[in-house]
Amino acid sequence: MAVYTDVSDEELAAFLEGYDIGGVLACKGIAEGVENSNFLLHTDAGYFILTLYEKRVDPADLPFFIELMRHLADKGISCPTPVAARDGRMLGRLAGRPAAIISFLDGMWVRRPKRDHCAALGAALAKFHLAGKDFALTRPNTLSVDSWRPLLADSIDQADTISAGLAAELTAELDHLEAHWPRDLPSGVIHADLFPDNVFFLGDRLSGLIDFYFACNDAFAYDVAICLNAWCFEPDMSFNVTKARALLNAYRAVRPFTQAEFDALPLLARGAALRFLLTRLHDWLRVPEGALVTPKDPLEYLKKLRVHQGVATATDYGLSE
Amino acid sequence: MAVYTDVSDEELAAFLEGYDIGGVLACKGIAEGVENSNFLLHTDAGYFILTLYEKRVDPADLPFFIELMRHLADKGISCPTPVAARDGRMLGRLAGRPAAIISFLDGMWVRRPKRDHCAALGAALAKFHLAGKDFALTRPNTLSVDSWRPLLADSIDQADTISAGLAAELTAELDHLEAHWPRDLPSGVIHADLFPDNVFFLGDRLSGLIDFYFACNDAFAYDVAICLNAWCFEPDMSFNVTKARALLNAYRAVRPFTQAEFDALPLLARGAALRFLLTRLHDWLRVPEGALVTPKDPLEYLKKLRVHQGVATATDYGLSE
Repeated sequence: MAVYTDVSDEELAAFLEGYDIGGVLACKGIAEGVENSNFLLHTDAGYFILTLYEKRVDPADLPFFIELMRHLADKGISCPTPVAARDGRMLGRLAGRPAAIISFLDGMWVRRPKRDHCAALGAALAKFHLAGKDFALTRPNTLSVDSWRPLLADSIDQADTISAGLAAELTAELDHLEAHWPRDLPSGVIHADLFPDNVFFLGDRLSGLIDFYFACNDAFAYDVAICLNAWCFEPDMSFNVTKARALLNAYRAVRPFTQAEFDALPLLARGAALRFLLTRLHDWLRVPEGALVTPKDPLEYLKKLRVHQGVATATDYGLSE
Repeated sequence: MAVYTDVSDEELAAFLEGYDIGGVLACKGIAEGVENSNFLLHTDAGYFILTLYEKRVDPADLPFFIELMRHLADKGISCPTPVAARDGRMLGRLAGRPAAIISFLDGMWVRRPKRDHCAALGAALAKFHLAGKDFALTRPNTLSVDSWRPLLADSIDQADTISAGLAAELTAELDHLEAHWPRDLPSGVIHADLFPDNVFFLGDRLSGLIDFYFACNDAFAYDVAICLNAWCFEPDMSFNVTKARALLNAYRAVRPFTQAEFDALPLLARGAALRFLLTRLHDWLRVPEGALVTPKDPLEYLKKLRVHQGVATATDYGLSE
């Protein structure tokens, strides 16, 4: 969470002249999104999110993200939707950065997801996968299996300072995943970061998905595996099969799993655990002194990884074949 | 700017049950206010600011701040206004902290105030002083002249690392101010921190004043002096007499200066400069390594102080006697 860039009243007024949403009434930096500067924007036409894309986002990726949100919204997926300027473009420039105005999506993320939240998430994820099928743009998953060896190399020297034996354990796991990673599963656009804070609810109703800035093309079932890790573990890192069953059954009621996906799920869950373990390890070892943001604990994902290492088939996730 | 405390969906829903503003639709941390956690709160009744008071605010001061905003709003001053809960109270508890729901005030702060902004500010400040006259609660100014000696003592050993000779210069200035500080000027509730980022405009119209968390009882003319420093210097630290004249004349058209206030203004401006110089110096010398927030430059206020040291009478600020 951070606001990096200050937008002046004069710059913003000039920027809004390109849009059909009236004049600015208020603009407040919001503590949402780690990679970008986000503002709550109030204009004569209502409330919006103004996003300025900071250096960590590759400008070449922006059309993929922006067009994807537009595409999903057109397909009936509830998500933040870019507002087109008068010239039809959804990406402009403000304060020297690429900028977009995006619809304000109501909802709260659920701190302690229950079974029904997991079911709603499963159905929404499947609908999202189907809705993305005819999306024209593509973006490779730069954080998939091929990136894990170099990521591990960045942290391996210090890994054992976090947990004794961690370097060897991660190396063995990566050897296994590289040797067995499935390459021909049904694929398309995946969210790739659908943690609870990226899923909004109003009461018990899922009101929308947000933050598509990790979205990419990869196996649908890998996206499911990311969600299993993010939604179905209890605070003590025990796996909640009831939640997993709800998530998976709701998913396959919308988009059935192929046999190959069913068979691959435990391995994909191990891979998804390793992916977040490695990026968290990377960030953990590079926290600036005195930083206000506490990095996420990589060992949480080590515990999740070990759970999946003990899983034989997807039936252990509560899924009947 | 910071959000310190996370508020869960469940806590917030329970908190809102005490109010008559419907259920929560959205709640986003906003990057506003250094001392507190602020959230944009969307409910069925509209948009609000939810403020959680963090440790740096003395809970004993909260009734003063909250009741003051209510009092000012009742007197027609445009400012954020606390929303009363069903039991009539304007202060509750949320996430273990004192909390208030406050109206959402439209407007943008002006990065480069012009003459007319300074005039609007002067008139608004005078109206604020008049509106506070019958406010029942009081709060001493803990950052006035009596606090400056201990504040200086905290930083004096390192002051010369910021600017050669600074320790001696500040000591001499403080000796002078302590010896000549006026103690019997017209007094009442002052804002004490009315920098441009605490004054909202919609176009050229002043739409409201915000951030009353330094408000206290002190000399009205000292509040004017703080504004002279905050609004009437150019980026090169030259004093803009045109802006000062506009501010002061607009002020006295609403609330005339007494002769004693007129005479004291240059000294008060020196004091106001020293006050912000000392707190900035204190923060500057104590920046945590790697902090995301850049402290404000204390030397800006040294330059302002020196300008006022060269002022003989308030006529030098463009004011006719």
